[in-house]
Amino acid sequence: MERLIGVDIGGTRTRVGAVTAGRILARKEFPTRGVAEVRLAIAEVLRAVGWERPDAIGVGAPAPLDMRQGRILQAPNLPHWNGVNVVEELRRAFSCPVYLGNDANCAAVGELAYGWQAKDFVYVTWSTGIGGGIVAGGRVVWGATGQAGEIGHIPLRPDGPRCNCGKQGCLEALAGGAALRERARERLGQPIPAKELVERARKGEPGPLALAEEACAAMGQGLAIVAELLEPEMIILGGGFTASWDFLGPKVLAALARWSRVRPRVELTKLGDDVGLLGAAALPLHFPAL
Amino acid sequence: MERLIGVDIGGTRTRVGAVTAGRILARKEFPTRGVAEVRLAIAEVLRAVGWERPDAIGVGAPAPLDMRQGRILQAPNLPHWNGVNVVEELRRAFSCPVYLGNDANCAAVGELAYGWQAKDFVYVTWSTGIGGGIVAGGRVVWGATGQAGEIGHIPLRPDGPRCNCGKQGCLEALAGGAALRERARERLGQPIPAKELVERARKGEPGPLALAEEACAAMGQGLAIVAELLEPEMIILGGGFTASWDFLGPKVLAALARWSRVRPRVELTKLGDDVGLLGAAALPLHFPAL
Repeated sequence: MERLIGVDIGGTRTRVGAVTAGRILARKEFPTRGVAEVRLAIAEVLRAVGWERPDAIGVGAPAPLDMRQGRILQAPNLPHWNGVNVVEELRRAFSCPVYLGNDANCAAVGELAYGWQAKDFVYVTWSTGIGGGIVAGGRVVWGATGQAGEIGHIPLRPDGPRCNCGKQGCLEALAGGAALRERARERLGQPIPAKELVERARKGEPGPLALAEEACAAMGQGLAIVAELLEPEMIILGGGFTASWDFLGPKVLAALARWSRVRPRVELTKLGDDVGLLGAAALPLHFPAL
Repeated sequence: MERLIGVDIGGTRTRVGAVTAGRILARKEFPTRGVAEVRLAIAEVLRAVGWERPDAIGVGAPAPLDMRQGRILQAPNLPHWNGVNVVEELRRAFSCPVYLGNDANCAAVGELAYGWQAKDFVYVTWSTGIGGGIVAGGRVVWGATGQAGEIGHIPLRPDGPRCNCGKQGCLEALAGGAALRERARERLGQPIPAKELVERARKGEPGPLALAEEACAAMGQGLAIVAELLEPEMIILGGGFTASWDFLGPKVLAALARWSRVRPRVELTKLGDDVGLLGAAALPLHFPAL
């Protein structure tokens, strides 16, 4: 399988690429809409590289989804995709196998196939939300129905703040970008966007600094849990917060070292913003027999 | 490989068994001593079943160990085993492949090979200490060097009680038998053994009941973390506390349901006290290419 199409459906942007051996030969990026726009973009990318048809298509999406049915479920942030059987639609349009996976799991597939290529690692997206993907012994841990890796929703504070998922005290509710903005509103009187909050913390402004340190401690505790449970050789991070890793990283690593006896190597993704697209393209090579 | 020898080295008792297709054909049990006693017991069990030599031997031990080297490391509770290369010793004595694994990982192997036989599950030993083993997609998650599955040492309370492992607020320090006894000493003025503490909690005595409920809430939180991270189809429990599962189980399950969106089936081990012995015997069939 050398002619792969990756589709990375994000909350705001969708990326489509033609991938061979980890190289993106042609790509198209556009504001996220529905399946018609994805079909057009795939056709365009195929023309650009001169492939009559792809060997397989992999699709990554941030929503709850059913990997076996190939259907995106209740997607509040993806209104055009709600209930769409993307696998069926694209299979009919391009006459090739199509696979659907959670976006953070796809990112782990990307690192496995084309990035750090470790055998035992955990990939963590630290952004507005927090997601993850697990690789053990060179294989992705999908879970019973493809929902594994939800590090953002491990419960850290039984009496902690309400999470978007409906539970309380999840890692995402303590360290995700949306949660930080909300904490700033509660404690500092204004909903500071995460990026600005981190910059103000870096300058030593006490309120933002305290919030950033709490978030890093929670992230470090979460990574320590992952390390004790899975003994990964590496933890790989991606997502918006990693742009400030020089400032946040030492705080996260101090918490990790305090709460874990396992000392995984911690690195940022090798694939940058393309980790999701490359991972979606490699999904057909790693899809499980569910 | 049909002629398997399992060796389950416990803190107080050692069990040795000859196993074929999940049946223990002959067994010997004795107070834990050193490798000489194990050699004698294996020889005795081999005579009993009439095998000239086994196809393979699997050894489970509760200590930190090096699976690749086959060596038991710094074993404070197993003084006769400290630093012993059990794999080398038994290989020389019985001229067959020998494998060494962590006891809780071996228990997971036992459930995989001969127990519930699920494809995605987590095995948890809830006893004096707390250990675990993870199976994903029908394969054991060993971790980078065979130390994965340490659910007892996931950090739940950053400011919680000191754990035997040197860290603070681990699940084992909140819900393990030794920790409960210590909590009883601190809060109730006497070090009540876990079994007695649970019985007194069952009768409604307020102090013990509060401690048992805290332990169950911590265990439920730990299982919720495992469920969100791994999406297992089942969680399987073994160990001394499961003898009181009718009383403790509902409390644990309530906490699990509150903190996890994933709803794994929760069951007790099918193999009873033999889970470690059967798992050690099956270890040669599931040992990883480390």
